[in-house]
Amino acid sequence: VLELPTKIKKILKNIWKVGKDDPRRVKHALKVGVSLTLVSLLYLMEPLFKGIGNSAIWAVMTVVVVLEFSAGATLCKGLNRGLGTLIAGSLAFFIEFVANDSGKIFRAIFIGAAVFIIGALITYLRFIPYIKKNYDYGMLIFLLTFNLITVSSYRVDTVIKIAHERFYTIAMGVGICLLMSLLVFPIWSGEDLHKSTVAKLQGLSYSIEACVNEYFEEEEKDEETSDLSEDTIYNGYKTVLDSKSADEALAMYASWEPRHTRHCHRFPWKHYVKVGSVLRQFGYTVVALHGCLKTEIQTPRPLRGLFKDPCVRLAGEICKVLSELAASIRNRRHCSPEILSDSLQVALQDLNTAIKSQPKLFLGSSQNGNVSQGNSGRHNPNVAVSQHINKDTNEAASYQNTGTPRGERMSRFGPNVSFSRLRADTLERRSAAATNERKILRQQLSRIVVLTSLEFSEALPFAAFASLLVEMVARLDNVIEEVEELGTIACFKDYDNNVDQK
Amino acid sequence: VLELPTKIKKILKNIWKVGKDDPRRVKHALKVGVSLTLVSLLYLMEPLFKGIGNSAIWAVMTVVVVLEFSAGATLCKGLNRGLGTLIAGSLAFFIEFVANDSGKIFRAIFIGAAVFIIGALITYLRFIPYIKKNYDYGMLIFLLTFNLITVSSYRVDTVIKIAHERFYTIAMGVGICLLMSLLVFPIWSGEDLHKSTVAKLQGLSYSIEACVNEYFEEEEKDEETSDLSEDTIYNGYKTVLDSKSADEALAMYASWEPRHTRHCHRFPWKHYVKVGSVLRQFGYTVVALHGCLKTEIQTPRPLRGLFKDPCVRLAGEICKVLSELAASIRNRRHCSPEILSDSLQVALQDLNTAIKSQPKLFLGSSQNGNVSQGNSGRHNPNVAVSQHINKDTNEAASYQNTGTPRGERMSRFGPNVSFSRLRADTLERRSAAATNERKILRQQLSRIVVLTSLEFSEALPFAAFASLLVEMVARLDNVIEEVEELGTIACFKDYDNNVDQK
Repeated sequence: VLELPTKIKKILKNIWKVGKDDPRRVKHALKVGVSLTLVSLLYLMEPLFKGIGNSAIWAVMTVVVVLEFSAGATLCKGLNRGLGTLIAGSLAFFIEFVANDSGKIFRAIFIGAAVFIIGALITYLRFIPYIKKNYDYGMLIFLLTFNLITVSSYRVDTVIKIAHERFYTIAMGVGICLLMSLLVFPIWSGEDLHKSTVAKLQGLSYSIEACVNEYFEEEEKDEETSDLSEDTIYNGYKTVLDSKSADEALAMYASWEPRHTRHCHRFPWKHYVKVGSVLRQFGYTVVALHGCLKTEIQTPRPLRGLFKDPCVRLAGEICKVLSELAASIRNRRHCSPEILSDSLQVALQDLNTAIKSQPKLFLGSSQNGNVSQGNSGRHNPNVAVSQHINKDTNEAASYQNTGTPRGERMSRFGPNVSFSRLRADTLERRSAAATNERKILRQQLSRIVVLTSLEFSEALPFAAFASLLVEMVARLDNVIEEVEELGTIACFKDYDNNVDQK
Repeated sequence: VLELPTKIKKILKNIWKVGKDDPRRVKHALKVGVSLTLVSLLYLMEPLFKGIGNSAIWAVMTVVVVLEFSAGATLCKGLNRGLGTLIAGSLAFFIEFVANDSGKIFRAIFIGAAVFIIGALITYLRFIPYIKKNYDYGMLIFLLTFNLITVSSYRVDTVIKIAHERFYTIAMGVGICLLMSLLVFPIWSGEDLHKSTVAKLQGLSYSIEACVNEYFEEEEKDEETSDLSEDTIYNGYKTVLDSKSADEALAMYASWEPRHTRHCHRFPWKHYVKVGSVLRQFGYTVVALHGCLKTEIQTPRPLRGLFKDPCVRLAGEICKVLSELAASIRNRRHCSPEILSDSLQVALQDLNTAIKSQPKLFLGSSQNGNVSQGNSGRHNPNVAVSQHINKDTNEAASYQNTGTPRGERMSRFGPNVSFSRLRADTLERRSAAATNERKILRQQLSRIVVLTSLEFSEALPFAAFASLLVEMVARLDNVIEEVEELGTIACFKDYDNNVDQK
């Protein structure tokens, strides 16, 4: 008995939270209440009821079904419902007209056949991706109305009158819904899409910052703070990763919304989806970067410390670009022409310098500095010819390295302790049969795999980390491009240096 | 006029493709047709109609709305509709009972208030995630039925009789839907979830294989074959990445389905979702690996060739494990106890050996081999104490490296050509104002960024590649664990060596 109040408290808290997270939900709930009451008046008030009659109940149904959270969704559903009803009505009357003069039994068979064929056909058509995306609800309403009219026309003679009445009341219901959703505290899907894009850019920026900071943390953190920063990183990119379906739904609704910015001819919802997809691609790199923190094989912290400065600075520059892009979209202006700033360039070079200054760790000994452009021929055909010569030199050098007989290298690393332990395990494993035992053994085995992999070169994980940072800069380019294109199509205003300096 | 036929042809082809991709869609369409015809008979056949009356039309409506593609979805909707109607009916009658004795005007106000309050309340409750996920449709039907009964009770006196009739006909409609979806060619969401999990595992395996093969391709491929292998890689992991919403929908429907395997008490849909989420985590590594193919900075192919053998073998072993997991789920049996085979271990060691044998490229000179376990203390507390001593030595060594004065290192790499070019660009950029010019400049700038980054150590990208492969092995462990847990809970049969050898 004592537990019940705490449970109820928890439920109430949850209910409260739903409204607190997004106060527009409360507004929407009130809007639905008002609309329903308004539409009920058609039935409850004597003078209105006299004009419409029993069909008024269809207006109530329409409001319940059509009034959705955002204006776009309501428009989509309302127009679908209206069109579906209209077309289905026409078709049903056509069929009734054809079957009208025949006998009762033939008519029943005819109606049955029509119901079967139209039912199967429409259901099949609803699987077509284009229709599923835009007109699924309309198809459903079409099927519903068609069946209602066709089937009832068999017994009710005033079916045309009833259909007329219904159509008017449904139109009335749709009208009230549109009025409420477009004029009273309208909630635009396009606006949501816009805001979520900004939030995604910022989230990625926070993630990268937290990630790099934690990577170069001097001390191992205790459990609690570590979990906290984990959450920061994860929350930052989480929304980006699984944004596909949410983005597409918002864009679909936005595509039904009338333009609502003064400057732009049409809301470029397609481009928001594109930006979203480029951001997802960028996000995968952030996930990989985050993976570097959690991997079993770690570069020792003192070793990482060597590269702390340039890495932190490079990450800072990346975050700055992301923030600038976010600000550009938020304020609907083009991004600063200095978005790819000198400091990004400098940070990139510093990282390069730092890595090359550790010839023990990585290849980049100073005399190889020029050679390393060799591979770029594919991407930049306009690079000087001299590089091809360098490439050849480089290839020769590499082949020389391969020249060492492979057997000799192998023998240097004969089966070591953990390897022989593994063999013992395998033997043991074969004799064991029960699932539980097997599981324990598998865990042992996997631990050994991890242990062996720990013997990998210590610099490898850091190289991956640095490489991902550089990769990020490359992908940042795609993001900037898409955002710029979005800006051009959405008629963002020009970048004003003075405004942003304030 | 001539263009029309080709357009129609294209549309017809699309329509045909929808059925070809999944023939169950055709079956479902026919099922809907049959159900609708059956339910229309209630209205069309004299003896049946006499028993039920005009309300028969509600059965038709119910079938249109409730009959969904999979059994789980139909059950979910049907039960939601049934329960929603029943509860709403009870509440509506309670309210009618309260308002019964009062005057006409008071009653109208009372009904209006009830409609407003219930409408706003239910709409608000629908935002609660738990309710949205499981009972959204039921809430909608509740609202609908409540309003219909409450509002019509104002004018119709036989409202109880009508409500009764409607409830019976809706129950009949739901009954026909359940019959059709559970007994005639049933389509189980659980089965889909099962198959999609297998397909995801296989897709990842194909992706990794194609990725590694392309990375170690000796020749640059021409555009066409390259695009082809791009597609193979992308299609492999694509479904994994964006699987979250699809997985959750399938799992939600599956949770409504009755158990349909002989062996297992309950369908473990929750665990399929878990496996899906672990696979997504694994998939991000594959994306990063794929990123290594497309990055602007590339390790030259001859250099890569040095590590071809161990990498290809390690990737092969990873693919083997993934395929074994796929086979295990497909055949509903536990996976082979030798799933983490010796050869994976050997491949890992070979890669290690190969990397260490190139001391010029990476840190791992042979005398450091033992030291590199130093960092593992955090993850494996049972590692021998001697490592802590090693760690100290290691730290000391690293700090010595940092000892080199930073300024000296910097001066070795003064501002080079591309850097000074960048400065010129910046000046130019500041004077330019028009958007177009700005864009061209930005592109130039970004190309310069890429060029500079090409000077990065050549080994860096390969190190990232190798590190990702090793990381994959570590994440593979999570995947195996989740699949094993799924196997235990889903009562998979034991692994039978003989069956699989055939």
